[in-house]
Amino acid sequence: MSSIAQHPDRLFPADPGVREVARRLHAAVESLPVISPHGHVDAAVIADDVAFPDPTTMLISPDHYVTRLLHAAGVPLEQLRVGGSADTTPREAWRVFCRHWPLFDGTASGYWLRQEFVDVFGVDDADLREETADAVYDALQARIDEPGFRPRALMAQFGIEVLATTDDPLADLAAHDRLAADPSFAPRVLPTFRPDAYTKFWADGFAANADRLIQAAGGGSTGYDGYLAGIAERRRYFAEHGAVSSDHGTHTADTLKLDRAEAAALFAKGMAGTATRAEALAFEAHMLYQQAAMAVDDGLVMTLHPGVHRNTHPTTLARFGPDTGHDIPFAVDFATGLQPLLADFGTAAGFHLIPFTIDETVFSREIAPLAGFYPSVFVGAPWWFLDAPDAMLRFRSAVTETTGFSRSSGFIDDTRAFCSIPARHDASRRVEASFLARLVAEHRVTEERAFELIVDLVDAAPRRAFKL
Amino acid sequence: MSSIAQHPDRLFPADPGVREVARRLHAAVESLPVISPHGHVDAAVIADDVAFPDPTTMLISPDHYVTRLLHAAGVPLEQLRVGGSADTTPREAWRVFCRHWPLFDGTASGYWLRQEFVDVFGVDDADLREETADAVYDALQARIDEPGFRPRALMAQFGIEVLATTDDPLADLAAHDRLAADPSFAPRVLPTFRPDAYTKFWADGFAANADRLIQAAGGGSTGYDGYLAGIAERRRYFAEHGAVSSDHGTHTADTLKLDRAEAAALFAKGMAGTATRAEALAFEAHMLYQQAAMAVDDGLVMTLHPGVHRNTHPTTLARFGPDTGHDIPFAVDFATGLQPLLADFGTAAGFHLIPFTIDETVFSREIAPLAGFYPSVFVGAPWWFLDAPDAMLRFRSAVTETTGFSRSSGFIDDTRAFCSIPARHDASRRVEASFLARLVAEHRVTEERAFELIVDLVDAAPRRAFKL
Amino acid sequence: MSSIAQHPDRLFPADPGVREVARRLHAAVESLPVISPHGHVDAAVIADDVAFPDPTTMLISPDHYVTRLLHAAGVPLEQLRVGGSADTTPREAWRVFCRHWPLFDGTASGYWLRQEFVDVFGVDDADLREETADAVYDALQARIDEPGFRPRALMAQFGIEVLATTDDPLADLAAHDRLAADPSFAPRVLPTFRPDAYTKFWADGFAANADRLIQAAGGGSTGYDGYLAGIAERRRYFAEHGAVSSDHGTHTADTLKLDRAEAAALFAKGMAGTATRAEALAFEAHMLYQQAAMAVDDGLVMTLHPGVHRNTHPTTLARFGPDTGHDIPFAVDFATGLQPLLADFGTAAGFHLIPFTIDETVFSREIAPLAGFYPSVFVGAPWWFLDAPDAMLRFRSAVTETTGFSRSSGFIDDTRAFCSIPARHDASRRVEASFLARLVAEHRVTEERAFELIVDLVDAAPRRAFKL
Repeated sequence: MSSIAQHPDRLFPADPGVREVARRLHAAVESLPVISPHGHVDAAVIADDVAFPDPTTMLISPDHYVTRLLHAAGVPLEQLRVGGSADTTPREAWRVFCRHWPLFDGTASGYWLRQEFVDVFGVDDADLREETADAVYDALQARIDEPGFRPRALMAQFGIEVLATTDDPLADLAAHDRLAADPSFAPRVLPTFRPDAYTKFWADGFAANADRLIQAAGGGSTGYDGYLAGIAERRRYFAEHGAVSSDHGTHTADTLKLDRAEAAALFAKGMAGTATRAEALAFEAHMLYQQAAMAVDDGLVMTLHPGVHRNTHPTTLARFGPDTGHDIPFAVDFATGLQPLLADFGTAAGFHLIPFTIDETVFSREIAPLAGFYPSVFVGAPWWFLDAPDAMLRFRSAVTETTGFSRSSGFIDDTRAFCSIPARHDASRRVEASFLARLVAEHRVTEERAFELIVDLVDAAPRRAFKL
Repeated sequence: MSSIAQHPDRLFPADPGVREVARRLHAAVESLPVISPHGHVDAAVIADDVAFPDPTTMLISPDHYVTRLLHAAGVPLEQLRVGGSADTTPREAWRVFCRHWPLFDGTASGYWLRQEFVDVFGVDDADLREETADAVYDALQARIDEPGFRPRALMAQFGIEVLATTDDPLADLAAHDRLAADPSFAPRVLPTFRPDAYTKFWADGFAANADRLIQAAGGGSTGYDGYLAGIAERRRYFAEHGAVSSDHGTHTADTLKLDRAEAAALFAKGMAGTATRAEALAFEAHMLYQQAAMAVDDGLVMTLHPGVHRNTHPTTLARFGPDTGHDIPFAVDFATGLQPLLADFGTAAGFHLIPFTIDETVFSREIAPLAGFYPSVFVGAPWWFLDAPDAMLRFRSAVTETTGFSRSSGFIDDTRAFCSIPARHDASRRVEASFLARLVAEHRVTEERAFELIVDLVDAAPRRAFKL
Repeated sequence: MSSIAQHPDRLFPADPGVREVARRLHAAVESLPVISPHGHVDAAVIADDVAFPDPTTMLISPDHYVTRLLHAAGVPLEQLRVGGSADTTPREAWRVFCRHWPLFDGTASGYWLRQEFVDVFGVDDADLREETADAVYDALQARIDEPGFRPRALMAQFGIEVLATTDDPLADLAAHDRLAADPSFAPRVLPTFRPDAYTKFWADGFAANADRLIQAAGGGSTGYDGYLAGIAERRRYFAEHGAVSSDHGTHTADTLKLDRAEAAALFAKGMAGTATRAEALAFEAHMLYQQAAMAVDDGLVMTLHPGVHRNTHPTTLARFGPDTGHDIPFAVDFATGLQPLLADFGTAAGFHLIPFTIDETVFSREIAPLAGFYPSVFVGAPWWFLDAPDAMLRFRSAVTETTGFSRSSGFIDDTRAFCSIPARHDASRRVEASFLARLVAEHRVTEERAFELIVDLVDAAPRRAFKL
């Protein structure tokens, strides 16, 4: 095998002098533990040490980063067994993927996959083509079927120290509890409170969700009061079960402080299904404000990632469900939207707010200035479509000159693809090394200090931002 | 002559290792035919093999890329014979241009012009100064007057295989027909359906245009029905006469599906001149949606380039006409605007939509995510003010990590300056080589694969996107 | 001392070949005089040659670039003696700064401070740590107390030829007059007309300010007429006392031409405190338009920097006053906002408008196209959060390909920190050299021409844009 995934200088800048510095800096963090404070791995899978199924079900069908590019090339999602569709066999879907593998050249997904194939599965990416698709499929299946190829062993092999999941507010977190109570399992697997389905009037099943919340955790109150009490109670439950953060995929970055009567009236409309879009957005903005207030009390770090039209293609949504590749970002305004929240809680002791963005225009214009003044605001790492080498370099260039390095969230993999975690974190570390190496070469930071900075970025920053 | 336009490494990255790779990649595409699927050359000039006039009339007066920068430096447009003004002689205007030639250093226009002077006219750009202005003028005139310096011969010399023009919906396309019927003329010169003057209530002569359309192609229907039938009929006419695309310079990227009665009511207001600005924009958004529906039937590729305030300086417009350098871009929102259209036609078989932008913020935020899911959406090449080496590199960096290379429209020269076509395409090829060379040097793409990619980008991509 | 601030290649690109060119280009401008056409130094301090106080009062407390990052790290502003607070001694505040000095690595402020400590004070930045904080404080104090360490001597030492201040419209400009009349003082210290507090209904004391203006300069008229006359009269006063520009920190870039009755009605509401936010913004937009009209007459260059939410943190504003680090930029729209103004004055003889932005998305989209057509529009240098090496390179890359180099405002330091002026201007010169060196290396500009360009950018451009 002679894959570029094995090249020790991959992702490093071409200039020989800068590259040498990057190598040294990367070496200092290459083996540090993986801290993953936000992602979408299922805790039960780890707790039960569930064997992985076949290569397609593991690597292709559930990963909208992968299926979206195939779909753009004209592959129907049912050929990839997306959303539970089973028009083809896993092996047939795998052949489709291999036939289209060259599409991924130059993409972040392609980089991760190649690295994963090589490092985790021992498969050469040169064999991802139609002629050898079946042989690769068999090799992957054999690797998957090895007794040692189970989540718990891989957690250790990947060096994962902290892994946060994303959970429904009413989740019992039993799997997290089992892992925490297991003396043979060293990593921390932490739940994350994700209330989106309970704060968006337009979400599927909003009223039913809110009703269940009020019943389960409203403390006997009803309506808006019970709802608010329920949110607060479930946040506390999550905190008690190890959660360090709540996660908010709001439509915009708007925050709004409504008085109780206004909020209750909106809530009633939301429950009745009679709220306008504007009212629904106002309520979401109000609940973001309310949960910041709660966070000041319960200490959960607030992560925020607005600015995405979800499920833009109705036909695909109806057939394959959400998270199938047609979420499209739009411009956001953190500067204006966060003002009510930051006016009241921006300097509150212990409050942490981490805005993530898929709109890179806010990096220099809003995120860096906010994080460069408010002690509560941390700079969210490049996320989603921006979680890619060039975009990460643009990010560092855009925020560092205003806020320096100390305000970073640390790298966020946000992944559903468990076996891509090491590749993603390594890519991030290589980019940090590349950025710092340039600053060293330009005599903007000493190399001695760059070593401290990269260790801080990789290891201390996520612990600081997420209170780990 | 020792112009930098002759340096074989022009536009390549400075790093010696990367540059070597760039050289090799560029060599692989340097001689490929020119495919120009959008531009503003006049088909009749080619059909009739019209001799070019004088240097000023050919190179300066009609090119708002050139005149705008001179105007910014204080040169009145009448001194450049813009818009038919004749206050000065062509030779005097040429002297003005030469006196200000240093203004173009570092600009895309400057790069093209220098290359064109050197390669097409054999003139050293070092002589573009007051002292030698007349001598250069005479040399250019002599070259222009050579019998072989005619459009048809230059088409061959420039290696142009496909050249699309931009045409009025009621154009008879006789020149295109003559060229297509001429066995001695190998290149394809294709018309493009450009209905802007028929869909914007605020356009000069909108009502008269729409009336003529209804008369000519409405199939006997009147009002909105005749109008809609007329648009569809003329699109078919264009397709039958070789057109592969329709081109839409809408104000925003909004699309809107109105029912027949609403649309007809708006149309009536537009014809009567009583529509508000909002109503005019709604009608334009509706017609964009309607024409996407037509495109699903007639197969014309839809190119879209919204987001420009046209003719912002009333005095200049009144005196010199449109396209005289004072169109100014503003922020666009493809993500929201295109939703109605993509919800209905985003996965329609054979539908192609190519959004172009002069707002580079949408590259990573909207264009790449859209083209990375919808099989109908291609990534429009950097356009207009962004059609320049650094901007093209920013573009590749912004879109590739999300969509890879396969979704590109291919290079678009969009030019009115016939003799700049080779320089523009060569600049694009040099930039593609530079971008890919960096990826090779960073071990993100193998050099072997980079050769395939650059050939695909230069040659296959425009054929694929424009159905050539 | 072996600080990176002393490295001759600091801020230059790493590639050895490009770096060599950058060195040569920088050498050509390194010793040119400093022209600073916008900043916040106090003229009286220079006129009276006031001794600087202690290091903290000089370098830390008044500089919100510095205090904001410390605040983000959790340092209460009172520990830094911000806004006149005196909870700690200057020496204690200095220790706090030294303890947090590593926060500034990679930031523009850190770069300037390090350079300033080394070049102006002879202090090694390696000693900016807790253990040596007191020794450094004493060394700085000793330097400050040297008889030669006074503003006038430093003006000469720093090579400052022009220094503009920012002044209240009713300021008597006595200090400026004294300096101008002093034959022993060579530099020009010019006032700048800054009417913000007189055009924003929401500004603290707006009505009182407007009343004083009408009284002082209204020429006997009252209400809106007296107000307008007062603005015009004070602009004339400033011009007569050496001012070359007026400076406008408007909320948006909107301009609006109201008729007299409308404007007078709005003004009355503003004086009565009954105007809505929309009315206040309309009046501000109207006054921007009005002052452009005045500028056509009185010749003052108009600088404009909209797009910032001022004083976003109410608690900090109440306790420490404005300009304490919590101004946060938002997206601006120059293309639409400036249209009324440019339609009427865009080609007016002698009118100069210099838009500055903290929203870098407008560089390529709006600023470059505007400055590339309108002879009145100059490209404002990167400003505030964008006044930093990487951002300056992004700026040049974004604007040059459309407008070339000739439309630049020249570097703007905008500083309150007198002793940082040389470091800021040198950083800018190094970045210009780096950008041009790349263009030379890529054969886009000849080295011979690059020498002309950098001298023009550093020296001629600000003289041209600001009529110096």
